[in-house]
Amino acid sequence: TFTRGMQTITVIPGDGIGPEISSAVIKIFDAAKAPVQWEERNVTAIKGPGGRWMIPPEAKESMDKSKIGLKGPLKTPIAAGHPSMNLLLRKTFDLYANVRPCVSLEGYKTPYTDVDLVTIRENTEGEYSGIEHVIVDGVVQSIKLITEDASRRIAEYAFEYARNNQRTSVTAVHKANIMRMSDGLFLRKCREVAENFKDVKFTEMYLDTVCLNMVQDPTQFDVLVMPNLYGDILSDLCAGLIGGLGVTPSGNIGANGVAIFESVHGTAPDIAGLDMANPTALLLSAVMMLRHMGLHNYAKRIETACFDTIRDKKVLTKDLGGNSKCSEFTNEICRRVLDLE
Amino acid sequence: TFTRGMQTITVIPGDGIGPEISSAVIKIFDAAKAPVQWEERNVTAIKGPGGRWMIPPEAKESMDKSKIGLKGPLKTPIAAGHPSMNLLLRKTFDLYANVRPCVSLEGYKTPYTDVDLVTIRENTEGEYSGIEHVIVDGVVQSIKLITEDASRRIAEYAFEYARNNQRTSVTAVHKANIMRMSDGLFLRKCREVAENFKDVKFTEMYLDTVCLNMVQDPTQFDVLVMPNLYGDILSDLCAGLIGGLGVTPSGNIGANGVAIFESVHGTAPDIAGLDMANPTALLLSAVMMLRHMGLHNYAKRIETACFDTIRDKKVLTKDLGGNSKCSEFTNEICRRVLDLE
Ligand SMILES: CC(C)[C@H](C(=O)O)[C@@H](O)C(=O)O
Ligand SMILES: CC(C)[C@H](C(=O)O)[C@@H](O)C(=O)O
Repeated sequence: TFTRGMQTITVIPGDGIGPEISSAVIKIFDAAKAPVQWEERNVTAIKGPGGRWMIPPEAKESMDKSKIGLKGPLKTPIAAGHPSMNLLLRKTFDLYANVRPCVSLEGYKTPYTDVDLVTIRENTEGEYSGIEHVIVDGVVQSIKLITEDASRRIAEYAFEYARNNQRTSVTAVHKANIMRMSDGLFLRKCREVAENFKDVKFTEMYLDTVCLNMVQDPTQFDVLVMPNLYGDILSDLCAGLIGGLGVTPSGNIGANGVAIFESVHGTAPDIAGLDMANPTALLLSAVMMLRHMGLHNYAKRIETACFDTIRDKKVLTKDLGGNSKCSEFTNEICRRVLDLE
Repeated sequence: TFTRGMQTITVIPGDGIGPEISSAVIKIFDAAKAPVQWEERNVTAIKGPGGRWMIPPEAKESMDKSKIGLKGPLKTPIAAGHPSMNLLLRKTFDLYANVRPCVSLEGYKTPYTDVDLVTIRENTEGEYSGIEHVIVDGVVQSIKLITEDASRRIAEYAFEYARNNQRTSVTAVHKANIMRMSDGLFLRKCREVAENFKDVKFTEMYLDTVCLNMVQDPTQFDVLVMPNLYGDILSDLCAGLIGGLGVTPSGNIGANGVAIFESVHGTAPDIAGLDMANPTALLLSAVMMLRHMGLHNYAKRIETACFDTIRDKKVLTKDLGGNSKCSEFTNEICRRVLDLE
């Protein structure tokens, strides 16, 4: 049932508003005649041999074939007792780089204009090792794990990214004044890799200083690279500067072209099924995906249609300050995609 | 040489601009006839028995007597091989609560208005344990240590603070979805303590979500309580919202009234000795100190004189957007202190 010349994408619609926003993206891709076909897969935690949590084999097999996934929000009740499916997916496919471009949207007012930066987060280790112990009653330790390999790999990714995306500087974000060995190792690898990218400016900054400077003047930043937890924090902070997770795309990148693009907002169960959701974050993630696939013209056209719709302010979902339904917003983008042909 | 009825304060002028801004504060306290006298002490790292780094005995003894310190910025070159003196002071006197009120200054324009919140940071453990190991070549672990006692103590401090300062809510900031045991323990203690403070609203939020919401609308926050590193990050972020570390006070609070109040900006060696420094952060820290000592009238008068000077915009240091020298700014505050008598 697969058409030739078409790249297959594993689509994981997700929970809550996930199915609606996924349908919206597929509709817009259809309007653009993007040469992709979708293989829909469900992702719920299952217990594998030895009691290890894993993603369902059908999802795993689809991703192994397609290499590229597009994913809506997944709910992970802590009470469920299994790890976040988002984390499990990143782990299963060794998606070591989490990439979040934050660009101010024209027409969508926030306290900041001209934000144009990218956070690149180490996605596999650090504070997310999951290794914790009770030492004695009332004393707990969590282990932050930093390796030379993962640090070098993410630093290389950040510099390659900067070079390939006409960006001029990379800032390593750390607390090596406090975690001298772990963040120190991370920082050392960044410095070493920087030596091989003399065309890209390299700076290093404490995380607290970055946060302070970020809210004072985000335009001073370009590409930022950092360990896992710092990336979790800083990517959300930066998303806040441009309007929140509803408009911020995200990509999880692994080796050999494997990648999952996802919206990182919640499942919004309160508005699920009501045709009120905003598909922008997932759509812009899908645009990142098109670029990842080398389909730059399609990416540009869809992105422009989305940005124009937001700038124009006539057809916006409620969270963006408008009165339109998800389907109306989607149709407006489709219309513009066709116009741009 | 000590006058009766006068509380002695250990003053640690610090490095760079430290002596200038300390003198400015002392001058303003003199103008206000604040009933304090100063015992100046130097703090440089010295090596004690067994090779442990410690603060000089004269400083330790002064603090042991006075219980209350006021401290300018201290430089800590990583190359010096000793820990940050700021951290060593917090540790030496078990100053377990770092308190930073962030309040928008009228007349000092930032992208935000009406910020009025307080970050309360656990100041003794967490990611600042200093315990790190090389596991094998290229693999390093840092240990984050969370204890029941320190978590309960800081939670209790936060709720007491809220109650005593007419604040209505406390938000516990955590990543217990990732660090389930350590942040989980911290969060559990916050919940338990909250039970004893039914008059204060309690909420809990992920650190990344707090950062995102903070830059979108800081007015939704009141008192925030969190583990060490999160406090380091969030306190700087919040300082950025109101104008930076040059205007943000800080207090480190221990048991039995022991406390050190400090400006948390750098030593600014480039402008040291040039009568250009801005003493506001240290002055507002000294105002926190007066409140800590129960000298509310003096606190109010000095604070008002400082706020009025900034609102008035006529006599401001360069970093605040003016052309005045440190001494002129200081004299203007003194003049207003006298007027307010
Ligand atoms: C869902 C959650 C586990 C995740 C994280 O903490 O990394 C999220 O906040 C993110 O940024 O993708
Ligand atoms: C000076 C430094 C060690 C310190 C910290 O990281 O805690 C500083 O950033 C602070 O916030 O007081």
